[in-house]
Amino acid sequence: MPHNILYLICSLLRPFICCFSSCHKTQESLLSSSSGYKNYRGIFNWCVVMLVLSNARLFLENLLKYGVLVDPVQVVSLFLKNPYSWPAACLVIVSNVFILVALYTERQLSKGSFSELVGFLFHCINLTIMLTFPAAVVLMVPSLTPGKMCFMGVIILSLHMHSLQQRQIPVRFYYKLWFFPTGPSEQHLNGGDRKVCYPGNLTIRDMYYFVFAPTVCYELNFPRSAKVRMSFLLRRLFEMVREDEYWMIPIIQSSMKPLEVPNHLIWLIFFYWFFHSSMNFTAELLCFGDRQFYKDWWNSETVTYFWQNWNIPVHKWCLRHFYKPMLRRGFSKIVSQSAVFFLSAFFHEYLVSVPLRMFRLWAFMAMMAQLPLAWFVGRFLRGDYGNAAVWMSLIIGQPIAVLMYVHDYYVLHYRQEVE
Amino acid sequence: MPHNILYLICSLLRPFICCFSSCHKTQESLLSSSSGYKNYRGIFNWCVVMLVLSNARLFLENLLKYGVLVDPVQVVSLFLKNPYSWPAACLVIVSNVFILVALYTERQLSKGSFSELVGFLFHCINLTIMLTFPAAVVLMVPSLTPGKMCFMGVIILSLHMHSLQQRQIPVRFYYKLWFFPTGPSEQHLNGGDRKVCYPGNLTIRDMYYFVFAPTVCYELNFPRSAKVRMSFLLRRLFEMVREDEYWMIPIIQSSMKPLEVPNHLIWLIFFYWFFHSSMNFTAELLCFGDRQFYKDWWNSETVTYFWQNWNIPVHKWCLRHFYKPMLRRGFSKIVSQSAVFFLSAFFHEYLVSVPLRMFRLWAFMAMMAQLPLAWFVGRFLRGDYGNAAVWMSLIIGQPIAVLMYVHDYYVLHYRQEVE
Repeated sequence: MPHNILYLICSLLRPFICCFSSCHKTQESLLSSSSGYKNYRGIFNWCVVMLVLSNARLFLENLLKYGVLVDPVQVVSLFLKNPYSWPAACLVIVSNVFILVALYTERQLSKGSFSELVGFLFHCINLTIMLTFPAAVVLMVPSLTPGKMCFMGVIILSLHMHSLQQRQIPVRFYYKLWFFPTGPSEQHLNGGDRKVCYPGNLTIRDMYYFVFAPTVCYELNFPRSAKVRMSFLLRRLFEMVREDEYWMIPIIQSSMKPLEVPNHLIWLIFFYWFFHSSMNFTAELLCFGDRQFYKDWWNSETVTYFWQNWNIPVHKWCLRHFYKPMLRRGFSKIVSQSAVFFLSAFFHEYLVSVPLRMFRLWAFMAMMAQLPLAWFVGRFLRGDYGNAAVWMSLIIGQPIAVLMYVHDYYVLHYRQEVE
Repeated sequence: MPHNILYLICSLLRPFICCFSSCHKTQESLLSSSSGYKNYRGIFNWCVVMLVLSNARLFLENLLKYGVLVDPVQVVSLFLKNPYSWPAACLVIVSNVFILVALYTERQLSKGSFSELVGFLFHCINLTIMLTFPAAVVLMVPSLTPGKMCFMGVIILSLHMHSLQQRQIPVRFYYKLWFFPTGPSEQHLNGGDRKVCYPGNLTIRDMYYFVFAPTVCYELNFPRSAKVRMSFLLRRLFEMVREDEYWMIPIIQSSMKPLEVPNHLIWLIFFYWFFHSSMNFTAELLCFGDRQFYKDWWNSETVTYFWQNWNIPVHKWCLRHFYKPMLRRGFSKIVSQSAVFFLSAFFHEYLVSVPLRMFRLWAFMAMMAQLPLAWFVGRFLRGDYGNAAVWMSLIIGQPIAVLMYVHDYYVLHYRQEVE
């Protein structure tokens, strides 16, 4: 009996005695995919530190070898001497005409001076000229060699203008049908949060705000941030300038030998520079509230997820002005999706072929190849393997497409000289 | 009045009309630290893909240049011919003696044949010989050149034995004091989950299980996994062999020129190879349930966090058998922490100095320098900046310590030849 009582006491006390407290418990390692652990912010920081350190080493080596290479005077003179920075300047001036024509058309439509058909025709002509005029000039005048950036600007502006026109149609429709209160065009709602009503948005100020805002989807009232945070602005500016100095200039200078710099790394740095630093800088300057310029495409486990998340402004445009209207007109999902890829492929080809004056369809085919690739990855690979496949297609796919153009460009322009 | 009603209807309907639904909302970019977003599993996968691809390129280049370099016969012959693989084999045989002596001592103690003092002396002598005997042999016999791994094995074994001895003291105390039910030494609890009671754990089988288990903290009953998952085992084996073939052998072969391979990368791969692949492989084979061999040290924002999380088995040992006992004896936190670093510094120095036969205290000083570094980082840097500082100390600190030894080794052994 006393033995049993002792046993009971011991059993009850066991968990509270330090020598029986276990320091092990059943659990998985964090790096095992079954652990479900995902926080790798430190690995991202590691990549940044490695980049900065290798940069610093390169910078020091160059400094010791050649002295100061990248001085501000040289940067300015690069843009002044550069033969293809002037067509870009001309294009910037010309593009104002397109913006003003679009604004004029919308104003006339709002007053009822233009009929819907006339307005539509004005917009169509405006868009067509916007897209074909620079291409025509480049193809007709062989001495002009504008960069890829010019055409990217043209395409982005045309997306802006199309979104504006599409967006005004239902707004105008409801405005005229329901006799919206016009009154003062700027209402004060929710204590100081300025809201613009329909015809009040058709001002030069609102128009240029939309053009410079880091989005291509038009809205009457964008979400706004309260004020410009100077520290945030300066950090983004520092990142932009640093990446510019260290990466963009060497890339521009060595643009004739693109295989010497790893293409994939350039793309990653370009992504960070453009989608994080530059867009956040612009947004902060304009008090533009929506900073979702990309989602977590680095985790994408399917090709589709990657294309839906790496470039959110263009993805939103495609969704709102192309994919959803197609669905509404009764097309199936798969047809609409293929059509989006087709449009994207067309613009990618436009972006590469026109500046190079060389129509090879490699960019077009690379984009269209995403469709079977997406099917394959989505069908056969999952989780980390899917993610690895997406990375592989990025790491290997892009350089191959670039290599194709470099090869063809070389054959076209230098073969005779060699022979 | 009808105007007012219309206005009311319009206002109520607004949120439901598609043209007023906004596609923008105020939010931060994911890469901004203010977004609080942390999921970068994809970046980790990117690192793995980049490693595999660069490996594959190196492998292909070597294959094209030299043909098949790494064949199984060569791997085996490397270990057979290698002059310092034999002392290691001898040490493995000798170490069984230490294990059996510890077991014998504990058995005598459990039976009461040894008094506590005699048992303590036996353990102390056993530990002392374990740590000094290999070092003495290496320093006395100049022709023997055992690798660093030998001494790492010796240190790990001594941690095991110390933990065993420490753990048995309270267990034995309560066993004798409270007359624990001895009965059958293996109880069946919770339907088949075999639990071992005190004297029943002192078997050769349990002893060797503890020695091979991926932990250095002794417990009577470790958490066990239900069964060996073959796919998991094979995946870890594949990782181990792959990393071995691609990385370890080139490193061993080029061990005399350690500056040609980036030291930091080797450390990272070693970490993955040892703490993830090898330990998980062993644990799976032994049905050892606790797979927490490391925590998320890659996110560490202070130096202290890094040291507490990168090597969990040793950290647990330090905590249980060194830090907490010191706290219990009335030492302050800062003194105990410094003492742990001091012990760690001693073993790091032992690990490097004895095989090189060269006492320079660089490893000791590198470890002790962590204390002021930890203070500095903890005091002045936070968040991503703290994380970047930890990475910098890893990326720059390790190669400097290695460089010191290489320099001194070179001066000591090759200077006369050069002069």
